[in-house]
Amino acid sequence: MIEPPYLLFLGDAPDPLAAKVAYGIRDWRPEAAVGQFRMEGCQADLGLPDMTLAEAREKGARSLVIGVANRGGTIAPDWVAILREALGLGFDLAAGLHVRLADVPELREAAAAAGRTIHDVRLPRRDYPIATGANRSGRRCLAVGTDCSVGKMYAMLAMEREMRERGMKADFRATGQTGILIAGDGVPLDAVVADFMAGAVEWLTPANEPDHWDLIEGQGSLFHPSYSGVTLALMHGGRPDALILCHEPTRRHLRGLPDYPLPSLDALRDLSLALARIVNPEVRVAGIAVNTAAMHAEAARDYLEAVEQRLGLPTVDPFRDGAGRLVDALVTDD
Amino acid sequence: MIEPPYLLFLGDAPDPLAAKVAYGIRDWRPEAAVGQFRMEGCQADLGLPDMTLAEAREKGARSLVIGVANRGGTIAPDWVAILREALGLGFDLAAGLHVRLADVPELREAAAAAGRTIHDVRLPRRDYPIATGANRSGRRCLAVGTDCSVGKMYAMLAMEREMRERGMKADFRATGQTGILIAGDGVPLDAVVADFMAGAVEWLTPANEPDHWDLIEGQGSLFHPSYSGVTLALMHGGRPDALILCHEPTRRHLRGLPDYPLPSLDALRDLSLALARIVNPEVRVAGIAVNTAAMHAEAARDYLEAVEQRLGLPTVDPFRDGAGRLVDALVTDD
Repeated sequence: MIEPPYLLFLGDAPDPLAAKVAYGIRDWRPEAAVGQFRMEGCQADLGLPDMTLAEAREKGARSLVIGVANRGGTIAPDWVAILREALGLGFDLAAGLHVRLADVPELREAAAAAGRTIHDVRLPRRDYPIATGANRSGRRCLAVGTDCSVGKMYAMLAMEREMRERGMKADFRATGQTGILIAGDGVPLDAVVADFMAGAVEWLTPANEPDHWDLIEGQGSLFHPSYSGVTLALMHGGRPDALILCHEPTRRHLRGLPDYPLPSLDALRDLSLALARIVNPEVRVAGIAVNTAAMHAEAARDYLEAVEQRLGLPTVDPFRDGAGRLVDALVTDD
Repeated sequence: MIEPPYLLFLGDAPDPLAAKVAYGIRDWRPEAAVGQFRMEGCQADLGLPDMTLAEAREKGARSLVIGVANRGGTIAPDWVAILREALGLGFDLAAGLHVRLADVPELREAAAAAGRTIHDVRLPRRDYPIATGANRSGRRCLAVGTDCSVGKMYAMLAMEREMRERGMKADFRATGQTGILIAGDGVPLDAVVADFMAGAVEWLTPANEPDHWDLIEGQGSLFHPSYSGVTLALMHGGRPDALILCHEPTRRHLRGLPDYPLPSLDALRDLSLALARIVNPEVRVAGIAVNTAAMHAEAARDYLEAVEQRLGLPTVDPFRDGAGRLVDALVTDD
């Protein structure tokens, strides 16, 4: 568990996109972000107070979270100097970079000397069991997509926020590095060894109160041959009661695979139900979340209405419309 | 690649079942097995010549292969003494044990001193790429099962043997530790990191001559929640042209999961085709391999006939009947 509150490190981000992890934390855990730390030339700005390390510590910050992708897969010397200083001031460090902070000798030594923790969230931090497929109390909702990166994490975070605002018991369960940095905990599923994938998801979504919902971040797609096995492990380990179908309608082919057209939402519904029923015969599709960011407002509205009519399921863009109707659909049959 | 020929180490096997890896190598790679090495009290016997280490070296043996499961997950001191001696005599070592030979300091040091290799085949030996889902020349056949341990490896090995006897180009592609020790190479898929599972299978089944068949060892089952993600990665990484359905009719529930009944062969056919078509729309089910070892001969024959009638597919027990009809079915439509 990464200790909040955070100071968000934006480094020398060349543009806002490079700092998308920091934006995610600001949007979804604003209470956990006391400020931002920017280096000379940083082209991202979260609109949070700029702070020195010492100022952030005074405001109570306990973890410095790397909210920016580094360039070239190495950690630049000027970053290392700042991160060392942070450890010395009592910060823990957290990052989801491909290169591990703990593999930088100066940082590993500085953390040991200061008694602080480095969280490299791309790597599993524990051993996971083999999945049992067992039923368990509590309820679970999983986002499944026609492709990678179609808004599965966003949909689950939006539903968590809506449910908590309604006073419902709900927890977003992170399965990727950005989600883990937002939630402060989770399973980096794509880095788990094959035999333990489903068991890791069971561990992440344990028995809970009967009216508690886990909102499980999806990964990959059943239709994406590079990652489909990870997706199926999520379905069988997560044992969902409800599925939310996620889609991005303007995409021409699967991410990174020009020869693979996107499947239809109908095909996603049918295949997802067939596979999820293996572990939970009662599973149902509760609704559809569409990322319409690349469409004009009117075209988006027409598209959502057409899908809703065709599939007979509440269909929203959680960013434009909020997740209220998806949450309504979750609780309708309870 | 484990260098043949092998001396098969049976240790102090308490019964033949403990030495099933050695029996597998004897049955499927008899040309690679020059003899057996048995310790005092060994209760397994392959019917191969008993040899000392030195005698086996004289007969040309290059690798000592651990063909027995060790008790309790540790390597006993009396094994270590023998394995050290083997390294000193010029043997490589190969094992698929849970505990790694290379983690035993005396063995690691003896191998380094002798310039020999230790193959711990439960662990990946290289980095694998992310799968591309790309089409490629050559043909591929994958065994899929209603459960774990229903004869998928056996079916593919039997088909390889039959195809080679007919002069066809065929290679068994191992994806588990027993298969790797039999084939001498392969991918220990259950130990590969999630993101690279499908890519590892693509690596294992590369482009080949148009009339060459890869016979891919299956793992787990789409219906087994502990391992289904591994199975789907095999289907999407292996991009099969043909599937062989594998089944064990007397089993009452999925292996290790008393609450999960076995799916029907019909359900296996339908779900497997739906998923395999994502990467290869031309894929078809070629036949059915049933493990009838637990049935009387007459009951087995009746069962096979009934399945063949119901599903309209050649249905055999490769152990009782050979794999000829499965191979016929593979080549029928070529």
